[in-house]
Amino acid sequence: MSHGIELIRRHVAEYIEQRDGHKANWQDICLTAGASTGIKHVLELFCNEVDCKPTGIMIPIPQYPLYSATLTEFGIGDIRYYLDEDNGWALNISELERAFQEGRKTHAVRAIVVINPGNPTGQVLKRGNIEEIIKFAHEKKLLIFADEVYQANVYDKDSKFFSFKKVMTEMGSPHNCVELASFMSISKGYTGECGLRGGWMELCNIDPAVQENLYKAMSAMLCPPTIGQIVVDCVAKTPACGEPSYELWNQEKCAILESLKERSVMIVKAFNSMKGFKCNMVQGAMYAFPRIELPEKAIAAAKAEGKAPDVFYAFKLLEQSGICIVPGSGFGQRPGTYHFRTTILPQKPLLKEMLDIFQNFHKKFAEQYA
Amino acid sequence: MSHGIELIRRHVAEYIEQRDGHKANWQDICLTAGASTGIKHVLELFCNEVDCKPTGIMIPIPQYPLYSATLTEFGIGDIRYYLDEDNGWALNISELERAFQEGRKTHAVRAIVVINPGNPTGQVLKRGNIEEIIKFAHEKKLLIFADEVYQANVYDKDSKFFSFKKVMTEMGSPHNCVELASFMSISKGYTGECGLRGGWMELCNIDPAVQENLYKAMSAMLCPPTIGQIVVDCVAKTPACGEPSYELWNQEKCAILESLKERSVMIVKAFNSMKGFKCNMVQGAMYAFPRIELPEKAIAAAKAEGKAPDVFYAFKLLEQSGICIVPGSGFGQRPGTYHFRTTILPQKPLLKEMLDIFQNFHKKFAEQYA
Repeated sequence: MSHGIELIRRHVAEYIEQRDGHKANWQDICLTAGASTGIKHVLELFCNEVDCKPTGIMIPIPQYPLYSATLTEFGIGDIRYYLDEDNGWALNISELERAFQEGRKTHAVRAIVVINPGNPTGQVLKRGNIEEIIKFAHEKKLLIFADEVYQANVYDKDSKFFSFKKVMTEMGSPHNCVELASFMSISKGYTGECGLRGGWMELCNIDPAVQENLYKAMSAMLCPPTIGQIVVDCVAKTPACGEPSYELWNQEKCAILESLKERSVMIVKAFNSMKGFKCNMVQGAMYAFPRIELPEKAIAAAKAEGKAPDVFYAFKLLEQSGICIVPGSGFGQRPGTYHFRTTILPQKPLLKEMLDIFQNFHKKFAEQYA
Repeated sequence: MSHGIELIRRHVAEYIEQRDGHKANWQDICLTAGASTGIKHVLELFCNEVDCKPTGIMIPIPQYPLYSATLTEFGIGDIRYYLDEDNGWALNISELERAFQEGRKTHAVRAIVVINPGNPTGQVLKRGNIEEIIKFAHEKKLLIFADEVYQANVYDKDSKFFSFKKVMTEMGSPHNCVELASFMSISKGYTGECGLRGGWMELCNIDPAVQENLYKAMSAMLCPPTIGQIVVDCVAKTPACGEPSYELWNQEKCAILESLKERSVMIVKAFNSMKGFKCNMVQGAMYAFPRIELPEKAIAAAKAEGKAPDVFYAFKLLEQSGICIVPGSGFGQRPGTYHFRTTILPQKPLLKEMLDIFQNFHKKFAEQYA
């Protein structure tokens, strides 16, 4: 089955119904080889011009670079809206409006990407904020790409995951008619089965003729990996209370999520104790994205080597300590600011060791370029 | 590793070296989620215009429809060359020349697809024929897409598989400089692990800057499925004589290929015994692609239903017997001729039963529309 095994698609629909409390249609759910494949297929729908204007799609900055890379590949414009770092990477509607108005000068702006919980930024959108985004998308006639692959990864006790589908449905007419594509993956959550390549997408309010063509294009690639599909089934249809494997499954799931939560606190605390670092709370997802102040001398040394300052910093860290981080410029950041992404995935003893080594490195680096 | 686990890429290089007797560079080998993914990525390199002319790529007719579908998706022209049915689906250079000259009127013709052994046509190219194709590609400055996924599936005792890489290398300068992308899959051969999604491509003589960008675009999709990669390893690095699993592996491999060979003979014989059928020998691959004469009355009945005659026939067969075939129009065929593809994959007793039912159906069909 090119769009996934029917039984598993049905189980995904049941999972979504349980998650949201609203009906999901299994035929609008398509299994994919990871979220990336689905995202790329839906982005491809926007490869055409509208009234002689190239298409533009709104993406958050910072953002997981699959979006910017694929937009470049497809020749689609990236209309960048900045997340508000000073407010815990919140998504401000005034900034969406600014980016949209700027973007429409040169592009037909047709869709908006929202990553919730955020990658690399780790924020979890509040329900009211999601409502605002849906209103915005409705007003501007945008399709929403809801990248919700971290939906199980919420650590902050004051945060809760709401799917765009749920919020939209509960807002009622006319907002429940916004075009939406939501993406999920087996690589995140508590499974973390990256290498098996599995995921799904749910399509809502897509023109049936468009959806038919999308399904047709996907079928040329035959089917997503069977094993990945089976893991999708495990994610969607978890053991029920009372079933033989329920206790062990629940225990393992809770232990993994609890440990990630502890690590999310630990990493933020460690970074915020370092001079020149400022790290927002990791409410969800799997990353910290601290801001670093780099000394003028370091910026000058980077320029002399032809490197971006954050890339220069990341290379020094790698060379001197063996720690690998991803420079903020790979995700986008406000000009003149420097960040990096690191993950909360290493187990606690290793994470502690890493943070100790990191602190030592940074102290020396700061002294060297003071 | 976005382009596959290094050790497995090295094993693939060793496999190719053993197969061809010539050096293979593991860094020019990229693991993929099946051959389709690799083919699509390389086709995407041709999405641009040249001197204001759209790109055209030569494809065989009949052909596995991934090519025509992807070319349509990418807006690339399909420059169709016909295989010579009366000569066992041979590939005639005069026909290549005709198609090229026709195609260049409207397109910048930049590449040629060759499927060997053929899908759906089952022919195995002779070495001399491959040499001619390479000369043709060199003369016209075409990149060769060598779809060689059926390289282990050669049944005819007078046929032998030669890779384009081997022939090109042995032709020496200047023909060993032709640009080549060769594709392989774990879904065929004697493994048949379609659902695990694994394969590889080998790139030869590609401009390093182009290859770098191709690798970069592929890395946005993270990595091919790990299990598929592991099966690639099993295909590339088979048990060596003397190793504990060698005997059983060799026995199973030979039994599978021998049985496919018997079935390839059986199916052709059965079809050729049916009135109005003409089926070329299945020298390799996994399909028979017989030509059928359809009575005028059947053609008229199809038209009345708004169906292509071969589609009409296939539906009648499905409805009346439960047998599913793929109409020739899905692969392309000379206008006014009708074909279908069927596979030699069912085990012998089932295949025999299928052929008996098919014969009964066809007899009745012929009578009905006589």
